[in-house]
Amino acid sequence: MSGFRATVLTLYPEMFPGALGVSLAGRAMQAGSWSLDAVQIRDFATDRHRTVDDTPAGGGAGMVMRADVLARAIDHAAPAGDARPKLLMSPRGKPLTQARVRELADGPGAVILCGRFEGVDQRLIEARQLEEVSIGDYILSGGEPAALVLLDAVVRLLPGVMGNEESGVQESFENGLLEHPHYTRPAEFEGRTIPEILTSGNHARIAAWRHAESERLTAERRPDLLQPVTK
Amino acid sequence: MSGFRATVLTLYPEMFPGALGVSLAGRAMQAGSWSLDAVQIRDFATDRHRTVDDTPAGGGAGMVMRADVLARAIDHAAPAGDARPKLLMSPRGKPLTQARVRELADGPGAVILCGRFEGVDQRLIEARQLEEVSIGDYILSGGEPAALVLLDAVVRLLPGVMGNEESGVQESFENGLLEHPHYTRPAEFEGRTIPEILTSGNHARIAAWRHAESERLTAERRPDLLQPVTK
Repeated sequence: MSGFRATVLTLYPEMFPGALGVSLAGRAMQAGSWSLDAVQIRDFATDRHRTVDDTPAGGGAGMVMRADVLARAIDHAAPAGDARPKLLMSPRGKPLTQARVRELADGPGAVILCGRFEGVDQRLIEARQLEEVSIGDYILSGGEPAALVLLDAVVRLLPGVMGNEESGVQESFENGLLEHPHYTRPAEFEGRTIPEILTSGNHARIAAWRHAESERLTAERRPDLLQPVTK
Repeated sequence: MSGFRATVLTLYPEMFPGALGVSLAGRAMQAGSWSLDAVQIRDFATDRHRTVDDTPAGGGAGMVMRADVLARAIDHAAPAGDARPKLLMSPRGKPLTQARVRELADGPGAVILCGRFEGVDQRLIEARQLEEVSIGDYILSGGEPAALVLLDAVVRLLPGVMGNEESGVQESFENGLLEHPHYTRPAEFEGRTIPEILTSGNHARIAAWRHAESERLTAERRPDLLQPVTK
């Protein structure tokens, strides 16, 4: 079986494939470029209530997902020898970057654990060497929307998925600058015209203008992207 | 009609509510805490092919979404007097923060435009004063997965949506530090035990340990969060 293999461990398998079953990712799935298996974590509980969580050691609000139940789910999804990275979607994780997305897309797939409640038992993270991944500095109801985002970003980079017409965005972002402004027909919209240079036909000047606009926008909105990388 | 009103403008309305129709957000929707309307942008095209995009002025790869078509869709979704902010999900946008999520949750709702292709005509962004929002530094197939994430983050903060048991995460993250490690039963997992201090019953020492762990993890993984805010 070729193609990128995604296995998502979740309490809400009905959230998948969701948006990933439609459009670009959905067509790529139908074409066999990738597969998605959503596994119900509760199937690995051992009591009749199918309990997956318990109160936090040391007290406090919320519930913590149990290491033993999650370990059984992970070991079932990724038996010994499965080379796929094991990710835990978590706001404590390393911020997701396009570089990491590309690495994942170049690999065999991913096993993705979606946290819920307060979090998961730390011993599980250590024992199964989970890579904690954050998609941004905000709190979600669980890891599922984050997993959808990560997979959407990965799938569009898989071989044969993206038409040439969509490849420009990626190139632009990957050079570390924000995209320059875009314009298209009509020539006039509510009294606003297209910058003259773009209709000049002078390709060198157009390229220079776009690069300058990208630099201006990046400096204005995301000066952090212009800092030298120090780690 | 009370509650948070979300209107999403998209070429793929079938992606909604998706994961937002399940679990916490789904129950909140059924309870009337919020509503979600997905509007097909193509319905606002005027030709028989329902064209929404055209080639970029100045040349280059990809297609650009037309200002005139999008303006009709936005003006239909948010007539004059609609106080909801108008957002454009875009990697060029300001990074989404939990503070912005909270502001949105305190407001009447949001009109969310999901970009596709290379982007949208800059004149539309300016004429309708769209707030460009980025959920992270990676490229998606379109704005839809980003809109799902933004709404998930907002909905859990709406009045009455989140049970007390889930409120701890938010408090922890909102003080600007990453969450400390969590543990729960069983007491031993694959030879790994729970840190003794957590079973000591000494609440002051437990709180101090957790805070120290949060600071340690933040310094280790996200030193950027410890920098003084300069903008």
